[in-house]
Amino acid sequence: MRSSYNGGAMGGRAAGTDGGGRASAPVDKEVDYAQYFCTYSFLYHQKDMLSDRVRMDAYFNAVFENKHHFSGKTVLDVGTGSGILAIWSAQAGARKVYAVEATSMADHARALVKANNLEHIVEVIQGSVEDISLPEKVDVIISEWMGYFLLRESMFDSVICARDRWLKPTGVMYPSHARMWLAPIKSNMADRKKNDFDGAMADWHNFSDEIKSYYGVDMDVLTKPFAEEQEKYYIQTAMWNDLNPQQIIGTPTIVKEMDCLTATVSEIEEVRSNVSSVINVENTRLCGFGGWFDVQFLGRKEDPAQQEIELTTAPSEQHCTHWGQQVFILSSPINVGEGDNLNLGLVMSRSKENHRLMEVELNCEIKEVSGKPRESFKKTYFIE
Amino acid sequence: MRSSYNGGAMGGRAAGTDGGGRASAPVDKEVDYAQYFCTYSFLYHQKDMLSDRVRMDAYFNAVFENKHHFSGKTVLDVGTGSGILAIWSAQAGARKVYAVEATSMADHARALVKANNLEHIVEVIQGSVEDISLPEKVDVIISEWMGYFLLRESMFDSVICARDRWLKPTGVMYPSHARMWLAPIKSNMADRKKNDFDGAMADWHNFSDEIKSYYGVDMDVLTKPFAEEQEKYYIQTAMWNDLNPQQIIGTPTIVKEMDCLTATVSEIEEVRSNVSSVINVENTRLCGFGGWFDVQFLGRKEDPAQQEIELTTAPSEQHCTHWGQQVFILSSPINVGEGDNLNLGLVMSRSKENHRLMEVELNCEIKEVSGKPRESFKKTYFIE
Repeated sequence: MRSSYNGGAMGGRAAGTDGGGRASAPVDKEVDYAQYFCTYSFLYHQKDMLSDRVRMDAYFNAVFENKHHFSGKTVLDVGTGSGILAIWSAQAGARKVYAVEATSMADHARALVKANNLEHIVEVIQGSVEDISLPEKVDVIISEWMGYFLLRESMFDSVICARDRWLKPTGVMYPSHARMWLAPIKSNMADRKKNDFDGAMADWHNFSDEIKSYYGVDMDVLTKPFAEEQEKYYIQTAMWNDLNPQQIIGTPTIVKEMDCLTATVSEIEEVRSNVSSVINVENTRLCGFGGWFDVQFLGRKEDPAQQEIELTTAPSEQHCTHWGQQVFILSSPINVGEGDNLNLGLVMSRSKENHRLMEVELNCEIKEVSGKPRESFKKTYFIE
Repeated sequence: MRSSYNGGAMGGRAAGTDGGGRASAPVDKEVDYAQYFCTYSFLYHQKDMLSDRVRMDAYFNAVFENKHHFSGKTVLDVGTGSGILAIWSAQAGARKVYAVEATSMADHARALVKANNLEHIVEVIQGSVEDISLPEKVDVIISEWMGYFLLRESMFDSVICARDRWLKPTGVMYPSHARMWLAPIKSNMADRKKNDFDGAMADWHNFSDEIKSYYGVDMDVLTKPFAEEQEKYYIQTAMWNDLNPQQIIGTPTIVKEMDCLTATVSEIEEVRSNVSSVINVENTRLCGFGGWFDVQFLGRKEDPAQQEIELTTAPSEQHCTHWGQQVFILSSPINVGEGDNLNLGLVMSRSKENHRLMEVELNCEIKEVSGKPRESFKKTYFIE
């Protein structure tokens, strides 16, 4: 035996149930900690996030260009990590900042707060935001809760919980709005992953032949499940990519808009969307779709931002983020032409085995400029 | 935020507690499944193990060159995985084989058994061996339970449990014996990892300066904990390596011998050993230690093997295994000469956060040929 904790190809793919596709069980807190929160207890991981200049600049500007939201106010930072957003809130003039962190990173946050002479303002509380209690309601909830394609990690659930329990009726959310985007793309990743898959299968057939000839066991019956496993890994699992804007071959479309002040868990547990995108490049190949998000810091209607700030993770020549984009590939790319219309149906729901991972069902109907239907397909992807 | 399920550098390092070094909690079965067993539910992982020819040949020969132990007998395979050992046992003439597997890999094992026309002999049972019940005691327990440096994964606990509950008093263990080995080595890995560590720290200092100048937060207080985290990762974590025998610079020593018929959990929960090794190479550098294991298939005294088989994971020019060796490096290698004597004290215990991972404490006293003491050190390592 030999298990790999540090993740073989799929070693990190953790399942809370027997993996047999049973109905979703209630979240086991200990399992959730072991699978999810523990990642955030490492400084190298905090450093990765703190090194993302697009992310940092957006939050920094959102806070310091909107000091009126912070000056003399109470703030709650959900998932403070190293404590950076709590510290900025205090530096922008907050009277009191509650910085909640589930992992032992809380100790480091506390040290950082003290070293920056803000321990009289920032109070670091170790615990899940669902479990802790505050002595007062707050004027601002600030949080950096976004995962790949916005909703992976399902951390916004915790922000909703914090908002419903601790935000004053007049309170402001930082960020205040969020959007998910989808666009058709070209990418040689599709061919590469198809090659990887084919290679894995060729390798399997050699392996199977060898086991038969050397060890007298016929492995053929496992060929199909092995192919399914490999297909899920190489083809169906969304891939991190830093797309170039030139890889986008049609109009990007918004598949979800969210007002952080009013959003509910049920509206993000399953995201359903029907949108259309028009190919705007001559004779190209539809190799798949890119998914990303942006968030806005607009304050609230009655108490707007003085300076509206946006954090976008869209493909960009200069401004890549650690989130990149999620790419959903087609193992057999499709030739398309300018003006072709894609009707896209997207259903994104949470994985039954792990509520922080996602399943995406994509329906696509392609029509020519003339309106003549050309081709349609339906694919399932996994955001792991 | 962005968590990495597929393991960033240390993403897979999972903790069952808050990571704050609290005392070891009782094992949470769901957490254990999510962290450990799930790895074994992937066919690609089974394929990796089935492709290890040294491993396969040893078990294959152990079974088929000792058919007297299997012919007409009842067998229990603990952690059958794909079912290969159970199938071989049946092919070698077993009357009945119970093949126990905790993960959904049990379904694939069942299919494989059927495809090889052995479903009248091999019964696949999905469950932990601690939880299941058999209708009879067995003549043979066969299992491939070995982890890195033998004991990582702590799977032998399950074999002991199975043995004490289900093995007949006259029963035989496959394998029957096991040994852990340690040897001084030279390796440029020590320098490389030291460089990696230095690079990570240089990177941290740049990062820290930037955060200060761009974002007004002083990160200095986190420099020490970051260094500790990185040291643990780069220097103190044992590394997988396929050592060349020429890298061994002193006599390999046995730090633990185990009779699988009588071994107890308490004797493997903590392994303590004092051994000595003599440098047998002229003017060289002690860069660390290599740890590996071997197991023997000898039957039992009253019912010995007809053909004794050994499976070794020692450094070899030709016969590497998927286990390789575990390397414990010294970040500052020490010059040693032929005849220098190393007194080695080893204590290997289980990680408080995860009983399947190990902590190794190594004490080393170096004496010259003349007996004159030269240097001594004490290091802690982690087998993750």
